[in-house]
Amino acid sequence: MSNLIPVILAGGSGTRLWPLSRRDFPKQLTALISEKSLLQETYERLSKQYKAEDIYVCLGPTHLAKTQAQLPKIPKKNFIVEPAARNTAPAIALIAKTIHERSPHAIVATLASDHLVENTGEFLAALKASAQIIARHPNYFMTIGLTPTEPNTGLGYIEMGEKYDQQDSFSAFKVDQFHEKPNQETATKYVKSMRFLWNANYLVWRADHMLSLYKQHQPEIFDAVTLAEDKKQEETFVKKYSALPAEPVDTAINEKEQNILVIPAQLGWNDIGSWSTLHDVLAKRSGHHIVKRGEHIGVDDKNILVYSKRHLVATVGLEDIIIVSTPDVTLVLNKNRSQDVKMVLDELKKQGKEIYL
Amino acid sequence: MSNLIPVILAGGSGTRLWPLSRRDFPKQLTALISEKSLLQETYERLSKQYKAEDIYVCLGPTHLAKTQAQLPKIPKKNFIVEPAARNTAPAIALIAKTIHERSPHAIVATLASDHLVENTGEFLAALKASAQIIARHPNYFMTIGLTPTEPNTGLGYIEMGEKYDQQDSFSAFKVDQFHEKPNQETATKYVKSMRFLWNANYLVWRADHMLSLYKQHQPEIFDAVTLAEDKKQEETFVKKYSALPAEPVDTAINEKEQNILVIPAQLGWNDIGSWSTLHDVLAKRSGHHIVKRGEHIGVDDKNILVYSKRHLVATVGLEDIIIVSTPDVTLVLNKNRSQDVKMVLDELKKQGKEIYL
Repeated sequence: MSNLIPVILAGGSGTRLWPLSRRDFPKQLTALISEKSLLQETYERLSKQYKAEDIYVCLGPTHLAKTQAQLPKIPKKNFIVEPAARNTAPAIALIAKTIHERSPHAIVATLASDHLVENTGEFLAALKASAQIIARHPNYFMTIGLTPTEPNTGLGYIEMGEKYDQQDSFSAFKVDQFHEKPNQETATKYVKSMRFLWNANYLVWRADHMLSLYKQHQPEIFDAVTLAEDKKQEETFVKKYSALPAEPVDTAINEKEQNILVIPAQLGWNDIGSWSTLHDVLAKRSGHHIVKRGEHIGVDDKNILVYSKRHLVATVGLEDIIIVSTPDVTLVLNKNRSQDVKMVLDELKKQGKEIYL
Repeated sequence: MSNLIPVILAGGSGTRLWPLSRRDFPKQLTALISEKSLLQETYERLSKQYKAEDIYVCLGPTHLAKTQAQLPKIPKKNFIVEPAARNTAPAIALIAKTIHERSPHAIVATLASDHLVENTGEFLAALKASAQIIARHPNYFMTIGLTPTEPNTGLGYIEMGEKYDQQDSFSAFKVDQFHEKPNQETATKYVKSMRFLWNANYLVWRADHMLSLYKQHQPEIFDAVTLAEDKKQEETFVKKYSALPAEPVDTAINEKEQNILVIPAQLGWNDIGSWSTLHDVLAKRSGHHIVKRGEHIGVDDKNILVYSKRHLVATVGLEDIIIVSTPDVTLVLNKNRSQDVKMVLDELKKQGKEIYL
C-alpha cells in the first residue's frame, strides 16, 4: 500500500553526541542502539509499510555517498539533494517541488532520520491515518504530536485546539499554537494539562498545498525551488538555493499558518538528543545501569556508559559517568552535564582545533 | 669524589601506574613528572656527586636495551644483568659479588630507579655520610630511612633503636625492627612516636660484608652468585640463578640480621606508588588541581588528572577523576580508588587479555 510518500530528512549534522557524531560522520549514520545505523532503522521501520521505490531521502551533497551506501534498496533517483544545507524550510520546499513534478496530489510525510521509535505499529498506523485525514482535508497539513511521558525541557510543544476529524484510533485536533522549549515549571504545567504534545516535526501534507504555502509565506524560497527540476536552470537554481537563509520550517511555515492539524501518538519516541538520553535508552534495553559497547573492564562502577571502538576502556569506582572513546578523541562526561558537550565544541572552535569537530 | 658506588636497581616492572607503566615499558622508563624518565632523573641526581663510570645499574635482560639507551653516559660494563628477574635478594647478592670482584672493600648503595627525590642536596649528603659511617663500621650495613610526613599505610616502617654514631648533620641509630605496612591506626601511632621511619629500601654496605651476610643467611643465593664472574661457569650460573626463589632482600637479609644502622633523612621523597600520588605530586608542582599532560579540553572540572599521549581528552563536570589515555587502553579512575587498578589487571589476566598488561 502506498498512498503516502515518506521522505527521510537525512541532512542533519548534530553534535550533541560528539565525539561519536562528527562533522564528517553525523549521528544518523552511526550505529548507536543496534548494529544498524539510526538511518537504517528508520528505513526498515518504513519498509514494513512502504515500498523502497516510494521512500525518498533528502540531504545535502556532503554525506550523499555514505547515505546511499547505507540504503542500497532506495533508488538513486529518490535521493533529493539540496545544493547546500539550509535547514528544513528550504529542504521541505525542495521536497514539495520535486514530488509535485511527479504527482501534484501526492501526500508526503517528512520524517527525521535519527530518532528512536519503539512502537513501530503505532508509528505506521499514525502515518496511514494522517494520510487519510489529509486526503480529506488537502488545505490543511498534519503534524504527528507525541504524547509526552515527562516534562522534557529540551523539546518544543504543540498546543492542541478543538477536535477536527478522526481516523481509525486517531483523533485529529486543530493546532492552537506551537511553543518553544519551556522551562521546567512550564513543561510540568504543559504535561499536566493534557493539551500539549511534544513536537517531533513529523509533517504530513499534499505536495500542491505545501507549495502554495511557500508561495504565500516564503516567496523567496518558492522562487528558488521552482527551478529545481529544470536541467537548463540548474546553475541558477544552485545559486539561488545556496543564497537562501538557513531557517527551520517551524518559523518559516508552521508559525505563519493557521490550518494545521495534529494527531497525538504514542510512539515510544526518543530523539536521543544527548549522551545521557542514550545511556537511559540503552540501560532500559540491557536491564542494568552499566552499559558497555566495545571492550570494557570495570571494577565497582555505578550507572556508567562506556562507548568504545577497538580500544580497551578500564574503569574503577565511577558513578554517573559517560565515557566515549574514538580513535582520536576521548570524552569523559558527568552524566548530569551531558547538555554541556557543546561547551567543549565551542572551546575547540575557539582554539582553532576544528579537526576534532 | 667517589668513595661510594651507587647502584640503581632498574629491574622493576610496577603495574600500579598501569596503563602508562606496562610489562614492556615499566614505570622507571616513563617520563612521568618531567620530560625525563624517572630513571634518567635518578641518574642525573647521582651524577652531581658521582662520576658516570662509578654508577652501576642492575636489571634483568628484558629492558636492558631500552635502559642503556636512556643512560648513554654509563659504561656498558656497569650494567649488571640478572639472568632472570628474582626480586631484590638475589639481585643484591649479584651486585655484591660483581663489585667485590673489582674491589672487595668498595662501599655500595643500592637505590631505586623510580622514586621521586625533591631534596637532591640532602639525598647526596645522606649517601656521603652513610658511606663514611659504614667505612668506620664495616660489619654493619646502613639503611637510609625517611622522616615520615604522614601516616602512610602503603609503606613499611623502620623502628629506630639507640643512637650509634654520627656524621655531618646525620645521626645513625641501630635498627630495632622492620615493620610491614601498618593499618591507619598503627601508622598514626608510628608517626606520633618519632621513632619510626619510612622504609625506602636504600641500603649502603661494604661488598665483602654483604657477601658474608648472604653466605651466613642465604647460602643458596651465595652459592649461585659465586659463579657470576666466571666466564667458564656462565651456563651453570644462569641455571642456578634462574632457579632461585624470587624474594625481597627485606625478608632474606634485613629481618635475619642484627647489625643494621639507619640514618633519618628528609628527602622530599615519594615512591609514586599510585595515580593518586602522582596527581598530588603534579598538582603541587603546577599549583592547581586540574593537571593535564597532553591535549585536554575541560569544562567545569575539579581535582582531575588527565594523562594523554597524542589524543584529545575532553572532560565535562568531573571531580576527583584520573584519566590515562594510551594508544590501546584508556583508564578512567575514581581518585580515591587508585589502589584498585590492580583489580583491573587481575580481571584482564582472568580473561586472558595479557596483551593489555
